[in-house]
Amino acid sequence: MPQLEERKKLASEWFKEIRDDICQEFEAIEDEFKAVTGPGLGAEQPASTGRFEQKSWERQNEDGSEGGGGVMSIMHGRVFEKVGVNISVVEGKFSEEFRHKIPGAEENPQFWAAGVSLVAHMFNPHVPSVHMNTRYIITSKAWFGGGMDLTPTHLYDEDTEAFHGALEVMCNKYDPNYYTRFKEWCDQYFYLPHREEPRGVGGIFYDYIDSGDFDKDFSFTRDVGKTFKRTFSEIVRRRAAQQWTEEEKRAQLIKRGRYVEFNLLYDRGTEFGLKTGGNTEAILMSLPPNVIWP
Amino acid sequence: MPQLEERKKLASEWFKEIRDDICQEFEAIEDEFKAVTGPGLGAEQPASTGRFEQKSWERQNEDGSEGGGGVMSIMHGRVFEKVGVNISVVEGKFSEEFRHKIPGAEENPQFWAAGVSLVAHMFNPHVPSVHMNTRYIITSKAWFGGGMDLTPTHLYDEDTEAFHGALEVMCNKYDPNYYTRFKEWCDQYFYLPHREEPRGVGGIFYDYIDSGDFDKDFSFTRDVGKTFKRTFSEIVRRRAAQQWTEEEKRAQLIKRGRYVEFNLLYDRGTEFGLKTGGNTEAILMSLPPNVIWP
Repeated sequence: MPQLEERKKLASEWFKEIRDDICQEFEAIEDEFKAVTGPGLGAEQPASTGRFEQKSWERQNEDGSEGGGGVMSIMHGRVFEKVGVNISVVEGKFSEEFRHKIPGAEENPQFWAAGVSLVAHMFNPHVPSVHMNTRYIITSKAWFGGGMDLTPTHLYDEDTEAFHGALEVMCNKYDPNYYTRFKEWCDQYFYLPHREEPRGVGGIFYDYIDSGDFDKDFSFTRDVGKTFKRTFSEIVRRRAAQQWTEEEKRAQLIKRGRYVEFNLLYDRGTEFGLKTGGNTEAILMSLPPNVIWP
Repeated sequence: MPQLEERKKLASEWFKEIRDDICQEFEAIEDEFKAVTGPGLGAEQPASTGRFEQKSWERQNEDGSEGGGGVMSIMHGRVFEKVGVNISVVEGKFSEEFRHKIPGAEENPQFWAAGVSLVAHMFNPHVPSVHMNTRYIITSKAWFGGGMDLTPTHLYDEDTEAFHGALEVMCNKYDPNYYTRFKEWCDQYFYLPHREEPRGVGGIFYDYIDSGDFDKDFSFTRDVGKTFKRTFSEIVRRRAAQQWTEEEKRAQLIKRGRYVEFNLLYDRGTEFGLKTGGNTEAILMSLPPNVIWP
């Protein structure tokens, strides 16, 4: 198999594998916390513990050719109020509008891209919302991108430090500059200028990772997924049984409004997806289950 | 007084007058329907009938000079779940980014603008959401713009026809082409390509109105405001006491998500406001009080 095809296969298979691992772990958490509830829900908790449901989607290019597709997995649970995980393998041609924005696309507008992305909104306002995404993109160049960030409504230093700490340890295995660089990139990216507010407490954000050593870059990508699964699950387990008040729940629903504002006003992935014929349902799966703008 | 100053004064005073008229009418409706409630509210109805609260805001230009300001009026009532009316008189200089998009701004980037804008989200899912806006803008040219559109969750032909009918009669007093042209413009503008859905049932949308006859154009602007007040109030009074089911309320909260998507992804006014140092609170007052993305 030609080298590039081999790499496509490895990356695509990994995104599926980590999706399965994460979904399994989140379902296990659902089983562990069966009866957690509190005031001001805003949505009904389901009668039984949550399970992921899958839905496939296909994508057509503008010229009518097949453009690949993906699978959405969504769970409405008792701990995870709404969590969506999307994997996709797509290919096509960048439109004029995007060519100058994408490395290697001006020479040749053909692209191939695969990835996994996840957003979780939790019933319990003491558990942060979270986003994680990793992707492998091929134009006339090839690179990895991704990241994860935490959006708590109620700040717990213990959670923030555990999250950043795990990312720092993981990044340091690959490059002494990764953590500082990717943390800063995350802070810059997840910022709402119109509110003069960060989206949350950050994490890491990276793109255009091509060190020249595919195995190393791919290993980093896998570590991002595994670190996410381990670290976020710990935070969820620590907070999921904590009692909350109606005011705390209300604050969470307002905070979710900022999440919506960021995703629709600024997020590159959302813009890119909606403007390149992506699947609207899969792209907007990240929007919170319910939101207040007072 | 120089002619242009006279016109600024006339327009600004009018926007304030129609704001007062509309707020008075909406408060009267609140008093008429004191005990309308139903299942699945998503938000608590207040203990007393709604009253508008005003909040002034000021605007600074990037160079630190005073840029005018405005007044937000917001009511959380029993009929009007959340209605915001904003009036503003602002002036400044268009940034490079906007100059080529605005008539007369390439010659001279200075602008003056005044307007009134209103968005209402109703408790009762049988009453449509509504938007109305009129504005007077001066660069090296000067023109009126505005419009109104109706976003029902549950369609009532009677309401849609009353709304469009009133607009047609009003438009025809000024120009036989206005209604058809502005209705079509509205349909094109309030469209969500990623959903392949119109935002609602339309209305009128117009811009760059400068017929050469200021008195006529200003009279049209005033008629837009008066027609809005009369016609929308009729629709509200017709529907406000109608019973609803939990499913109907839920459908409304989902429909509101489309409203958010439109305003944050596509609305020129929102983009323009947020990128020209507008008041975030006033601009995003249009967002619904609560929303579901299932």
